[in-house]
Amino acid sequence: MNALPSAIIDALRAVLGPENATLHEPRFQGHEQRYVQDCIASTFVSSVGAYVDRFERELADYTGARRAVAVVNGTAALQIALQLAGVEAKDEVIVPALTFVATANAVHYLGAVPHFADSAKNTLGLDPTALRDWLGATAERSGDAWRNRHTGRRLRALVPMHTFGHPCDLNALLSVAHDYRLTLVEDAAESLGSRYHSRHTGTFGRLGTLSFNGNKIITTGGGGAILTDDKHLADHAKHLSTTAKVPHRWDYMHDEIGYNFRMPNINAALGCAQLEQLPKFLASKRRLAARYREAFAGLEQASLMQEPQGCESNYWLQTLILDEAAADQRDAILTATNDAGLMTRPAWTLMHQLPPYRDFPLAPLPMAESLARRLINLPSSAGLA
Amino acid sequence: MNALPSAIIDALRAVLGPENATLHEPRFQGHEQRYVQDCIASTFVSSVGAYVDRFERELADYTGARRAVAVVNGTAALQIALQLAGVEAKDEVIVPALTFVATANAVHYLGAVPHFADSAKNTLGLDPTALRDWLGATAERSGDAWRNRHTGRRLRALVPMHTFGHPCDLNALLSVAHDYRLTLVEDAAESLGSRYHSRHTGTFGRLGTLSFNGNKIITTGGGGAILTDDKHLADHAKHLSTTAKVPHRWDYMHDEIGYNFRMPNINAALGCAQLEQLPKFLASKRRLAARYREAFAGLEQASLMQEPQGCESNYWLQTLILDEAAADQRDAILTATNDAGLMTRPAWTLMHQLPPYRDFPLAPLPMAESLARRLINLPSSAGLA
Repeated sequence: MNALPSAIIDALRAVLGPENATLHEPRFQGHEQRYVQDCIASTFVSSVGAYVDRFERELADYTGARRAVAVVNGTAALQIALQLAGVEAKDEVIVPALTFVATANAVHYLGAVPHFADSAKNTLGLDPTALRDWLGATAERSGDAWRNRHTGRRLRALVPMHTFGHPCDLNALLSVAHDYRLTLVEDAAESLGSRYHSRHTGTFGRLGTLSFNGNKIITTGGGGAILTDDKHLADHAKHLSTTAKVPHRWDYMHDEIGYNFRMPNINAALGCAQLEQLPKFLASKRRLAARYREAFAGLEQASLMQEPQGCESNYWLQTLILDEAAADQRDAILTATNDAGLMTRPAWTLMHQLPPYRDFPLAPLPMAESLARRLINLPSSAGLA
Repeated sequence: MNALPSAIIDALRAVLGPENATLHEPRFQGHEQRYVQDCIASTFVSSVGAYVDRFERELADYTGARRAVAVVNGTAALQIALQLAGVEAKDEVIVPALTFVATANAVHYLGAVPHFADSAKNTLGLDPTALRDWLGATAERSGDAWRNRHTGRRLRALVPMHTFGHPCDLNALLSVAHDYRLTLVEDAAESLGSRYHSRHTGTFGRLGTLSFNGNKIITTGGGGAILTDDKHLADHAKHLSTTAKVPHRWDYMHDEIGYNFRMPNINAALGCAQLEQLPKFLASKRRLAARYREAFAGLEQASLMQEPQGCESNYWLQTLILDEAAADQRDAILTATNDAGLMTRPAWTLMHQLPPYRDFPLAPLPMAESLARRLINLPSSAGLA
């Protein structure tokens, strides 16, 4: 085995001990069983119930958003948030090339077109400087809106995603969004518990979205939420996610085309218990980051991702970034660590390299391409430290 | 109070006793708590897990379909089934006007156009005779396909829905589908346990779909499934519902635009327990139908919906149909029964009368319009008899 893979395994073992470790697994050591049992006993397991209301209230309280609307998953949350942000068929929506495919899919479901932009090294999220340069060269004003001068399509929204929990540079991105009249919608699927200048991610854009998939910092089995400070948007999000049914004692009237996206009460029951444990999970992940930093301190060809300045990251997935010179060892490291029972994984395939998104508009992506060749996620579950 | 509402309340009370009764509520008296507890203890609560595999296997066994693929809800199941049936943007898909809005929405999500057709009195589902007449006047051959001669759009699929659990006349509908080269996809959201000529609904079309929403005969909180005898379609349905991720040890490659539609394991755990009780629920609902028949036997201005000839219905929702002469008393009956704590409801607003579907293609709908004015669902929960 080469020196670098071997050194990385040694560093991981120093922190994790001799056991196998998955990338990220959920932890149910609070009231999960009790709340779910209570939910089943109530018979309200479906889209109406006390746990859904409570989960929404507690998410709003925790994040500081005025309202939270719980839905079936983060993708559904983003689809509805984008629709409410005014995204229409054939609009372009700027999303990072370095993201999970759901960010681009949610845009596509609305008939709109994802437009891929580059990442910043210090946050792994959208690079506001590169984006401003790109829009300066690419966007042209047309009445109230800005269009992509090459495609003629309206540029409608900007969707930063807080990669592995590390907040993007939101102030700079909000400034770009303002100047180009883009509505900012935050994909905070990975950043529950992460703050930018003390304020929770997902609450800076007109709407923000969370995910509670099984691999996230807290889970509802499958689930997501829409955050917003706008009561009307929140009510509309709830309406759209409950098939746009107009409340009535018995009539089935739907006043627009909605979705069957409401979070079931049984999943919300799990979520209420998980949310109670979030502070503990956050502390554990922060300890793990510190222990990894110590164990990897002597490693010369790679560095660990740290929370950006002025931010508090949830450290959802711990991330090692290889130096350029060591990038060609990425696959050897992935093979060696996974073979050793230590689950690691690379960055997602960049969006513009996925077959369905190959011919879509894109900015130059030098940093996203570089990061994708060098990035490795390490075992990150709460409870490992 | 008028004589008819009062007579209906008396008949309901004769069956249900003095207690209040909801329209339909779930019943958890089997292994629900045990399986869900076990699922949480396993930590596999999300989109991968033993209960999802088991639920799919047991659904296939029960329905006789070769394969079942579990997803987040019946709407998602229908969307994926229609996509796999070849429905493309701008195609027309024939659906009943008398259905829950999800049937039309699933067509719309694919960019296709629902085309509303009439119901038969004896099944409440699509009327094959009226449909054949309508297509004879409306469809024109164009190469291999048939088009709507008024809109020019391709007629692609036919989606019968088994209303309140009563099977449509599938043989006659299959014959119409064959003659007009329409792919038949069954919306069996309401008909788990219902059989047409001894074979389970949802297994006659190229694909069929089920729903396990909280109001259905069995529930997973929220959930649905796709049924098919075609292994390739089943594999593709699973692929599409798991974001079209290509299995790999670590790479994130998605080879088409998929969906985040997989059923979480915790919901499947509930489903496994519910499915064990389905025979008991079916027997209870059949007893309730018989007891309602007895109690309503003397009522002259209305009749109870009975399973169509050659069919075994699950009697999901018990249904009273007023005579034409009594149709103007429908709202008085709904008011009186609901005021008395006996939950009843009318048929759904017909699809072509919903604002978002007002300008869509439609056949003459005399029976659907007549039924919608006369139909009342009665308290139907398993355990009432």
